[in-house]
Parts: sequence; structure tokens; C-alpha cells
Amino acid sequence: MDRRKFIKGSALMTGLLSISPMDLLASGQTEESKKGQAKNIIFMISDGMSSGTLSMANLYSRNILGRNTCWMNLYLENRVARALMDTASASSIVTDSAAASSAFGGGVRVKNGVLNVGANGERHMPIWQKFKNKGKKAGCVTTVTITHATPAGFCINSEKRNAEPEIAEMYAEIGFDVMMGGGDEFFNPEKRTDKKDLYAVYKQKGYQVLKTRADLSNIDRNKKILGVYNTGALPFAVDRAGREELQSTPSLADMTSAIDRNKKILGVYNTGALPFDVDRAGREELQSTPSLADMTSAAINHLKDHPDGFVLQVEGGKVDWAAHANDISALIHDQLAFDEAVKTAVDFAEKDGNTLVVITTDHGNANPGTIYGAEATANFDSIAHYKFTNEYILNSIHANHNLQQIKDWIFETNRFRLTDEEAKHLLGFYQGLEKEDGLYNYKKLPFKLYSDIQKKHNSVGWISMDHSGDYVELTMYGPGSNLLKPFVKNTDLHNLMLLATGLA
Amino acid sequence: MDRRKFIKGSALMTGLLSISPMDLLASGQTEESKKGQAKNIIFMISDGMSSGTLSMANLYSRNILGRNTCWMNLYLENRVARALMDTASASSIVTDSAAASSAFGGGVRVKNGVLNVGANGERHMPIWQKFKNKGKKAGCVTTVTITHATPAGFCINSEKRNAEPEIAEMYAEIGFDVMMGGGDEFFNPEKRTDKKDLYAVYKQKGYQVLKTRADLSNIDRNKKILGVYNTGALPFAVDRAGREELQSTPSLADMTSAIDRNKKILGVYNTGALPFDVDRAGREELQSTPSLADMTSAAINHLKDHPDGFVLQVEGGKVDWAAHANDISALIHDQLAFDEAVKTAVDFAEKDGNTLVVITTDHGNANPGTIYGAEATANFDSIAHYKFTNEYILNSIHANHNLQQIKDWIFETNRFRLTDEEAKHLLGFYQGLEKEDGLYNYKKLPFKLYSDIQKKHNSVGWISMDHSGDYVELTMYGPGSNLLKPFVKNTDLHNLMLLATGLA
Repeated sequence: MDRRKFIKGSALMTGLLSISPMDLLASGQTEESKKGQAKNIIFMISDGMSSGTLSMANLYSRNILGRNTCWMNLYLENRVARALMDTASASSIVTDSAAASSAFGGGVRVKNGVLNVGANGERHMPIWQKFKNKGKKAGCVTTVTITHATPAGFCINSEKRNAEPEIAEMYAEIGFDVMMGGGDEFFNPEKRTDKKDLYAVYKQKGYQVLKTRADLSNIDRNKKILGVYNTGALPFAVDRAGREELQSTPSLADMTSAIDRNKKILGVYNTGALPFDVDRAGREELQSTPSLADMTSAAINHLKDHPDGFVLQVEGGKVDWAAHANDISALIHDQLAFDEAVKTAVDFAEKDGNTLVVITTDHGNANPGTIYGAEATANFDSIAHYKFTNEYILNSIHANHNLQQIKDWIFETNRFRLTDEEAKHLLGFYQGLEKEDGLYNYKKLPFKLYSDIQKKHNSVGWISMDHSGDYVELTMYGPGSNLLKPFVKNTDLHNLMLLATGLA
Repeated sequence: MDRRKFIKGSALMTGLLSISPMDLLASGQTEESKKGQAKNIIFMISDGMSSGTLSMANLYSRNILGRNTCWMNLYLENRVARALMDTASASSIVTDSAAASSAFGGGVRVKNGVLNVGANGERHMPIWQKFKNKGKKAGCVTTVTITHATPAGFCINSEKRNAEPEIAEMYAEIGFDVMMGGGDEFFNPEKRTDKKDLYAVYKQKGYQVLKTRADLSNIDRNKKILGVYNTGALPFAVDRAGREELQSTPSLADMTSAIDRNKKILGVYNTGALPFDVDRAGREELQSTPSLADMTSAAINHLKDHPDGFVLQVEGGKVDWAAHANDISALIHDQLAFDEAVKTAVDFAEKDGNTLVVITTDHGNANPGTIYGAEATANFDSIAHYKFTNEYILNSIHANHNLQQIKDWIFETNRFRLTDEEAKHLLGFYQGLEKEDGLYNYKKLPFKLYSDIQKKHNSVGWISMDHSGDYVELTMYGPGSNLLKPFVKNTDLHNLMLLATGLA
């Protein structure tokens, strides 16, 4: 562009001008192809993000927070390449996260439930191993267990995705450079059935082990990093955000004991500061765990100065869990937390100039969306009043509560009033009259019933409580993004990463 | 490209070369911007197409027909520009088709239900009128009534979208060049409450009036065209496709009278050729109405030689109706029929070189998608056995049928077996024990119940029976497509069309 302006301003007037043929050849390239190869890759996965999840997060961000998401800003500023991606696995039009991550990670579609192992036992080399072999540093950060399917699919081979204790050992053997997330039960000798002390193993191999958010500010730059901040997954973002308020609002149990059922004194809840059990433990957890953006930032800082570059996977793993629970508030806030991590990655890539950022999902989940109706906008915006996840809300209800207590609790946490019928129906689950199962519904909470009740008030619907097979959104920023075609298979990204970095 | 090759092959060797500054400036342009302005626009709307609808149509096309859709081929061949589009209206995050078409057509968001009239009565000039005023020919073809919201939003102003009898008169006054679809009740003096003969009015204004598919091959090239092929909308594509088979398969009524309930003789259904009532009328309708591709092709042929160019809207209107009915077979086959029309338009545009083709939807509807499960692929593929729309299937059931007859009919038309419970539940609707309403559910058929039953067999779910507010897919081919940014509001397309044709 500058060159053209210069020419226009001077030589243009002469009618003829002299120019080096090398300059002329360069002028035939597009802006993108000039950027050349990527030295680093940050591969970001909002796990189980249906098209409607992306839309609703931006809608919420605009309506409630007054700004577009970082992801949509990349579009508005026309800085990225986009594609639709077919996410199928070898065994189904609808993939699970293990097969999906294997498609990216191993470059070959495998059966659902499997990590980079083919139908005849072939072991496809995971792409983070390929990059490590070429001298790059490699790592993963996630809001679920660090041994979960999505990070594992870039790192190891396993016939079973749920071999998480073994996967924790494999990571140490291979020696990835930064691994952070939840999953203390797979490292802690007191929680592992084989009593192995994986933390000791990692330390022996030269790792620094981080346990809390505070540890992120004391990273030893000369060591590899294992950060395990929780048993199981990290908390949902909406519960994290609510932690200040958690200190000043009572639980259902508090309400039950501290006041009578006269709704006129409900107002005291917002100024009262009685402690309550569910949250006393929860508050500690919330304060000691980092956000996805915290981990992303720490990981980039730790990896960025390596002369041969780095590759980092960033997973918003609980977007998927929120969709499995049909929990709109958990979904939107974890998608927004993912978006904060996107901002962290893109801001780095922008300054760095040598980093390809891939932003996508591994599959849809539950296809949530806003539903037509006179009150659709007000209903959707009312989600801003939801203080906690449905998991937290439903986990606070017990069989010995009465209907009014349940109605008060729902009003306190979601700002709408249950009918007697609805409160009765909910209570039935706690009294053993009905039952719900479902993935990640460890406590058998009535997620589906409650989401059906919420739908009348928030105008958001779901097709199921499981993954969907729709084509999904895929975005790339930085060098290598010019390689992206508008419609790709998940496996295409494997080769694209190798090509973008000059390894293929 | 050729110029660069030439330079590389000859002048490059000299180290310096002479070149005209005009050539040098041109070399800074991309391939797309070289294409220049569009003379014609074909604006294609698959009404109410959620992201999952686009995905499932391609999945079905690949799994069952062995090929990608034309739309996805455009991506695979990297021939188009793509964007996400925000479809909100002035009154809601979830638009109706009137406000959606007005956003494209008038360039301003209006309230749901309104056609190009602002909150204070402002009348926004519809874009097809702008193009007519500049000398272009303008028209619309649709599978629903030609006076329906989507064509109307490009053509006229009306405070009420359902003023279809008046809209039929407005079209004639403005004098659009090709208008084709359904809606005989708005033109036929015997069906209009005011008894006006709109056909006579159109003829007086120099129109040729087409009534059947056959008429498409006898178009007078010197006249304007009004084609009205049916009362109400045109038939669903899956029912159209089934017409050959309709001649050799019996209706539920036939089965009831012709055979006893022994399932062992069900096989005769496929070779028997007894006539049946529902279909005798239906067959006639199916044979006399054109497909969307038929109409698109005829309209393009009629408009293409106009020296000042043309603009044509093509609406796959019953994709929306199928979504409102949660009818997966109707949805997929009408989306595939829309895709045939896309092929017709793009094939023309490719030869023509001066035509911008816009391919999109006005809003999502019901967010359908495939659901995870061991049998997801086989279940989804079983939709290939669905012979008719759910409307046709459910309309054939009557209160005096017994459970076995209903079960046989469902097996005959959908190839799965109802449980006694399900058959009883279905029958209850015909016996007045239960009721379903819903848009376009004129006959109060149990669409939701039936779709819930089908879901167990086809693994497809829906979030509701109404529009959704998700961002939607938008694709452009041809000159002007370089103007598209990756994230747009529906209103942006209004200005883009004016810019692409040099009118703004």
C-alpha cells in the first residue's frame, strides 16, 4: 500500500518508471501471504459450542455489557479467515470430544471414545508430540481436568478416553512444557487408587507444580509447569463471578433457618452476611482457581521466548458441560470467559506477529437458541439476573424443603417465581419420585426439568442434553490463516497446522 | 496472473524493466475487485434456515445422494465470500419474516409484522422499486404465496404483512416484471372477499398470467409475467418427489378398506395401485406446480436480456414452514429444492459474469440438529425412508381409525413402528382429547407430538416450533461479493446491493 502511494505521488507523473523485478513480484502477493510461516500456534477450543452459543454470548455481551465479544470484533474488524467445519468422527455423524480432538490431533478420524488409536490399533502420532520433536515447546490449559479428552487428543494415544490416571503419567513421560487445569484426583497419591504420587514424579522430572491461582505469579521460568487447581473441573465462570456476591447473600439453608416465609423481608438477603455451608467450601475453591484467561496468559508468558517457538491448546471445557446441563447462564458466562482467553491470545499474537491463532469448537452441543415471542428480548436479558449455575441452585435444594422455600430460593437466584405446580415437580426429584441422569450430572439434579421451567422466562430452548452434528464455526488469525478454505473437515486442521509452521 | 507470468518469463532477466504506471496500479487490485460492478442481482432466501438445516441438508445429500449440495460445493471450490449475519428486528432479538425482509428491502429495521414502515409511519422505499426506477427489471419467485412477507419486503410498504389481497394489487400498480408463487386466493375473484378479478387487472396491464408448470414453457417474452400456481403455498418438495410413488402406494383409508390388519400382507402396498382420495387431488396439484428451480430458471430466462440488468428474489419459503412443523423430511427436501435453485442461479451467474448472487436466510427457525448416540448415523439416514411430509401423514389419520391402522400407516410412510402408547396418544388428538396450535398448522395436526416420536428414530431435535435469533449464514458469489465483511447486520445488505450495482 505504501509503495503504491509513493508511486502515485511521484513516479506516476513521468509515464514510465524503473522498478526492480523483485519488488514487482512481491506486489502480486496478497497481504496475508506476505505474512509467511507461523512460529507459534495457539489452538483455542470452546468445547461443545453450537452456533447459537456463539451468537447468544455476543447478544448477551452487547445487551448487558455494552460491547461485542472479542471473537465478533475480529469479524467486525475483518482481521480473520473463517470456515464451516464438519466435525464427524469415524463412527458417527455426531462426535464425542475424544474423537474430535483426535481428528485435530492425529489427523485421522477415529471412533468415539478413542484417543488417536485407529480401528486396527494404529497409533496416530499426536500433533503436540510432532511439534515437540521439532524443537517447539508444547502445552495445554483447560477449565476441566487436564487429562480430559480435548487436551489428551493433542498429546497422547489411548484406547480409552477415561484412562485419566494413566494419561497423567503419559504426559510426564513425554514431558510437555505447560499443562494446567483441574484433576487433582489423577495426580494426588491420596486420591489415586494406585496411590502413586504423580506430583512427586513431575517434580522429579523438573516440573514446578502449581496448586492455586496465586501460584501463577510465582512461576519459575526455568522449569516446566504442571498446574492442577482443583479436584475435577474448575468452577463455572458465573459462579466465579458471583463470588463477591456470594459473601453477602445467603443460601437456601440460611433463608430457611434465619427468617420466616414472609416475602416482605426478602430484601434483607442482599445486605445480610450470614455464612452458609455450600458456599463456605465453594468460596475457597473459587478464590484459589484461575480463570481460563489467567492460565492462557501465564502459559503464553512461560512459552513465548523459546527460540524455536511454541504450541498451546486452550480449552473452554465447561461450555460443553453447561450445554449438557442445558444451563444458559453457565453457558454464556463460560463462553464469555473463553472469549477473554481469545482476547489474551490474539493480543499476544498481534504483538508477536509470528503466531497463528485457531479459534473453534470440537462439535455443537444442544443447539441452544433464542425463541420468537413478544417478550423474547426482555426474557433473554433477564439472564443477567441469574446469580449462579443451575448446578449450584439445584444442589442447594433438599428433600425437606417446603414449596415456599423453594420458590423463594429460585426468586432469590433467578428472579422469577415458580408456580406451585413447578415447585412441587422440582421437589419430587429430591424426594425420589423422579430421576434425571445425563453426562456430567454427577448428583442426578433435575437439570432438564429446571431448564424447561427457565425457558418460559428466558426464551432459550435446547434440542437435547447432548452433542450435535452441525457444522461449526472456525476462525483463524495470523500467519497461516490464508491456508484456510471455507469448508473443512476437522482432520484438515492437522495438516494445516503442519503446513502453516513449515513442517509439512 | 498472466501479466506476472509474462514478466517472469522475459523482462525479469534484465534486472530493470519499463512498465506503464496504469498497469502497475491495476496489479495492486485483488482478483475480486477486478470484477467490477454487478449488473444483475439474484437474492436467494431459504426462509427460516437455522445453521443446522444447512448442515443436515448437506449431510443428507452426502449420505443418501452421494454428493455435496451446491451451496457447500461453492465453499469447497472456494468461490464465494461468507459472513455471519445478525437478523434482529427493531422490536426483538428474534425477527419475523416481514421485519427481516424489510431490513434487506428497506435498509432500516422495523417492528415485527410490518413491511417497510417505521415507528412514526415513515415509508422506506423498497429496494426492488429503487432498482426499477433506475431502469432494471425486478421480480420475485417463491414457494409460498407471492404476496407473503419475504417477497413483499423487497417490493412494497404495508403496516400489516397479512394484507395479502392489497399487496397483490400493489404489485400490479408498481408493475414488477416477474412475480411467481402461490396465492390464487388473493388474485381470483371467486376467492377474494371483494370479488375483484386481479388476474384481469394484471392482464389489462400487459401481463401474461401463468397457472401451471406447463405454462412455464410458453412464456411470451414481450410481456410481464404473473405466475400463480396454487391456492396457498406450493406443495412441499418431499411430497412432490413422492408423486410417482404416490401412484403406487395406498393411503391409510385404502389400507383400512382394502385389507385386514394382518401385517404379513403389508408388502402388497408397494405394488398395489389402488387410487386414494387424499392423493387424487394432491397428485393433480403436484403435477401442475413448478419447483423453485423451475421458477428461478424461467424468471432468469425472462429477465436476462434486459440491457439495464435485472434483480430477482428467490425464496424457499417452505423451509420455514417445515421448521415450524418440526418436520425433518419436509425441511431437508425443501432445503435441497432451494439448493437446486441455487445451482440454477450460480450456473447462470457464472456464464453471465455480471451477476451478484446472494445466498442466505432471513432468520433461524427451531435450531434443528442431529443428536449424539450410538445409532445417530443410522437414525439420521433413515429419514431417506420418509415418503411424505408429516402434514400429509397426519392429515391422513382420522378419529375412527384403530391403533393397528395407525401403526401400519406410520410404518408404511416412515418405516418405524409406533408403540401402543404412542398410537393411543396420537389418536387422542383426532378424538379431541388434546390439541396443538402453531403457525401454519391450519389443520391443528399433532406436529409436536409426532416430531417427538420421530426423534427417537431419527436422532433429530428442535428447540421450539418458532423462529430463533441466532446469527445466520450468508454467502455471496460474483461481482460485489468483495464488499462483504465477515459479520454484518441484515440492513447492511441493502446498501451492499446499491454499492455493488453502482447505485450508491
